Amino acid sequence: MIEYYDISGCYIMRPWAISIWETMQKFFDAEIKKMKIQNCYFPLFVSPTVLQKEKDHIEGFAPEVAWVTKSGESDLEVPIAIRPTSETVMYPYFSKWIRGHRDLPLKLNQWCNVVRWEFSNPTPFIRSREFLWQEGHTAFATKSEADDEVLQILELYRRIYEEFLAVPVIKGKKSELEKFAGGLYTTTVEAFIPNTGRGIQGATSHCLGQNFSKMFEIIFENEKGEKAMAWQNSWAYTTRTIGVMVMVHGDDKGLMLPPKVASVQVIVIPVPYKDADTQGIFDACTATVEKLCEAGIRANSDFRDNYSPGWKYSHWEMKGVPLRIEIGPKDLANDQVRAVRRDNGAKIDLPRGSLVERVKELLEEVQESLFVAAKQRRDACIQIVKTWDEFVEALGQRKMILAPWCDEEEVEKDVKARTKGEMGAAKTLCSPLEQPEVPEGTLCFASGKPAKKWTYWGRSY
Amino acid sequence: MIEYYDISGCYIMRPWAISIWETMQKFFDAEIKKMKIQNCYFPLFVSPTVLQKEKDHIEGFAPEVAWVTKSGESDLEVPIAIRPTSETVMYPYFSKWIRGHRDLPLKLNQWCNVVRWEFSNPTPFIRSREFLWQEGHTAFATKSEADDEVLQILELYRRIYEEFLAVPVIKGKKSELEKFAGGLYTTTVEAFIPNTGRGIQGATSHCLGQNFSKMFEIIFENEKGEKAMAWQNSWAYTTRTIGVMVMVHGDDKGLMLPPKVASVQVIVIPVPYKDADTQGIFDACTATVEKLCEAGIRANSDFRDNYSPGWKYSHWEMKGVPLRIEIGPKDLANDQVRAVRRDNGAKIDLPRGSLVERVKELLEEVQESLFVAAKQRRDACIQIVKTWDEFVEALGQRKMILAPWCDEEEVEKDVKARTKGEMGAAKTLCSPLEQPEVPEGTLCFASGKPAKKWTYWGRSY
Repeated sequence: MIEYYDISGCYIMRPWAISIWETMQKFFDAEIKKMKIQNCYFPLFVSPTVLQKEKDHIEGFAPEVAWVTKSGESDLEVPIAIRPTSETVMYPYFSKWIRGHRDLPLKLNQWCNVVRWEFSNPTPFIRSREFLWQEGHTAFATKSEADDEVLQILELYRRIYEEFLAVPVIKGKKSELEKFAGGLYTTTVEAFIPNTGRGIQGATSHCLGQNFSKMFEIIFENEKGEKAMAWQNSWAYTTRTIGVMVMVHGDDKGLMLPPKVASVQVIVIPVPYKDADTQGIFDACTATVEKLCEAGIRANSDFRDNYSPGWKYSHWEMKGVPLRIEIGPKDLANDQVRAVRRDNGAKIDLPRGSLVERVKELLEEVQESLFVAAKQRRDACIQIVKTWDEFVEALGQRKMILAPWCDEEEVEKDVKARTKGEMGAAKTLCSPLEQPEVPEGTLCFASGKPAKKWTYWGRSY
Repeated sequence: MIEYYDISGCYIMRPWAISIWETMQKFFDAEIKKMKIQNCYFPLFVSPTVLQKEKDHIEGFAPEVAWVTKSGESDLEVPIAIRPTSETVMYPYFSKWIRGHRDLPLKLNQWCNVVRWEFSNPTPFIRSREFLWQEGHTAFATKSEADDEVLQILELYRRIYEEFLAVPVIKGKKSELEKFAGGLYTTTVEAFIPNTGRGIQGATSHCLGQNFSKMFEIIFENEKGEKAMAWQNSWAYTTRTIGVMVMVHGDDKGLMLPPKVASVQVIVIPVPYKDADTQGIFDACTATVEKLCEAGIRANSDFRDNYSPGWKYSHWEMKGVPLRIEIGPKDLANDQVRAVRRDNGAKIDLPRGSLVERVKELLEEVQESLFVAAKQRRDACIQIVKTWDEFVEALGQRKMILAPWCDEEEVEKDVKARTKGEMGAAKTLCSPLEQPEVPEGTLCFASGKPAKKWTYWGRSY
């Protein structure tokens, strides 16, 4: 999937990874086009004056900004920043383009790279200094339109994770401490990695309120002829999605790819024997691949003569191909092929007559099973706690902790301080949009004050 | 299409431009996938040691390289370059991945941004400091495989220009002076802008030979067990394609978009009169758009009530929409719509019964007419010369000059020196792949030595 690169924190995404990215992109791009969001492309570079216009925002990103100061042998007059995100790149032009209510809504998206020069533990896909993403930036006349879009986009992010990557996520709202720098509120799809006991922010959809429109003077004349400030959103998902998928589905044998995003869904391997009709087996493999490809299934064969079938089985298991088809002399004689599922190792003989239908069914079953299994593992990590002691115990067990909370920033800071340690402090992951009831008299697990909502807590990436 | 940006040489590509880019991308990406070329993504950043590995190559790019020297407030230990192109980014990994003949061919492509910090006359699309492109990088066991691919890709570039952008191009080979720095030979599709009398390199497909594989040690064991160096190609087209299209098809009224790439192919405008059935007209417009969209035609309506029909006509003409449909009371009464072609202003009444078929025909006609007209204008600029005096005269008339040439580097340098002036010097554009005969005794127009080939000369972007 990736190759390490000679600059720390940068990684090469090989075709196996990029094809997953492209599958998600195709889905998401078509969906946002239905929502009348248009693609555009703004420059990679930002001038320092513009970058620094929104104080909270720049405070959030400043330590990670990479600066270009030279071209060729010459120093630039003014250093130029590489976008860590494009709010400040785009909004001066939103200000220019938006004059009257007829210019709204303005709904733009771009597919691009961004750079955040982080120094803490670069990890492929999860935390890299350059990554690919889409970033949507929209402006509306009213808050309710903006609110609606935030949730529409969040639902698309949920679908990417659950329907494509087979990764269960929780839709929720970020705390004040964890929300996007400069925004009004942040919604998130939050995943959890049972192996490490850490939550991970999957993708975020922010309502920026009128904060940026105030700073960047995105002002329009409404239908009554009055000046008003636009309501804005921004939202993004990144190549981190692929990393989450890898961590959630991997096993001892290696990667496990959900069929919907696998660039090879079926690998066909000839299993010749000494005395057998080798040519017949190879022909059957070729015919099988052709038949599957014609039906829109991404199939390939492995005819390499310098590796044994057993080696090939392990190789393609490691690479995560959802379904393997083996064809040997017995299969040839019985006019069948043998299918082996990557997820559970089940072996199924498929008559060649119903090959396409059965393979399609099997791929759907694998897709579904991966999600169900991942959800069971995730759900087994969720622990409901009501007191500080229960919280500390659950944290020690690396749980995803659901607790009643007073929703105060100081209390979250306090929890962070009290749980500091080698493993990292606990913080809020999100407050689920689907809130369990908070009965009268429920107290905050951390402060003892009246609880306002249920919130997920845990260690996080 | 574009908006000027507050950093010189950077431009914002608005949806009207990006949708053209996406149309070409969809075509090209599908074609290269048929050729088993796989997409990948390599980092934006290059370390200086790697960048400087190939001497000729870096000499060609060094003055334009942008350097990152700081992150946040800290200086980097070593400055890091932003890719001007990715040969030096990728080939150390080609060296790692390619060991035996079974690892070949290796055929990769990426869609990305690159940065060339040029100081001479930034021009939107044509010469910008950041641009979007695809870059293909392939490695083969034999030269003949590499040679074949160079031409296959060049044909795809021709199709992008001629079939999509309706821009005539000449396939040719670059001179030694104009070829890609560090490569073996460069092929090009060369366009010409009659208004300015300048040639423009449309897209290039390079055979790199074994030069990079030598520098980066891309060595494989062939079938005989001997070590051999890989043969490599690289090839790219950029957002410049859009700029060439704009310059070739624009007229006094503004842009003219070929239907195949226009994000709106048909704009439907209601033309109500005082006493007429306004609602009926609006309904007919809506129905027309729906019908066209259902048939896969990109149609839209302009119902804005604060602009007159006449203003809208000009507006959409300026934006280059290939076909306008007007619906007024008379059209309603006659169960027809009026279509107006952007390219020649022709007005055609279309019965609503055969709307879809007729609109499809008209769009095809516009596409074809744009190409034919552009080709006539281009061909009228081509001048065959045989002597220096004829050459100077033709250059003064801003022609694309086809001349017999001895193919010597010193002679091209000499022509450059002798034609220096306010308008810029003349240089070779390309030697057409389809060579007219060079009769025995034909002399070079510039040096008087025996001519080896016909070559296009002119001023260039």
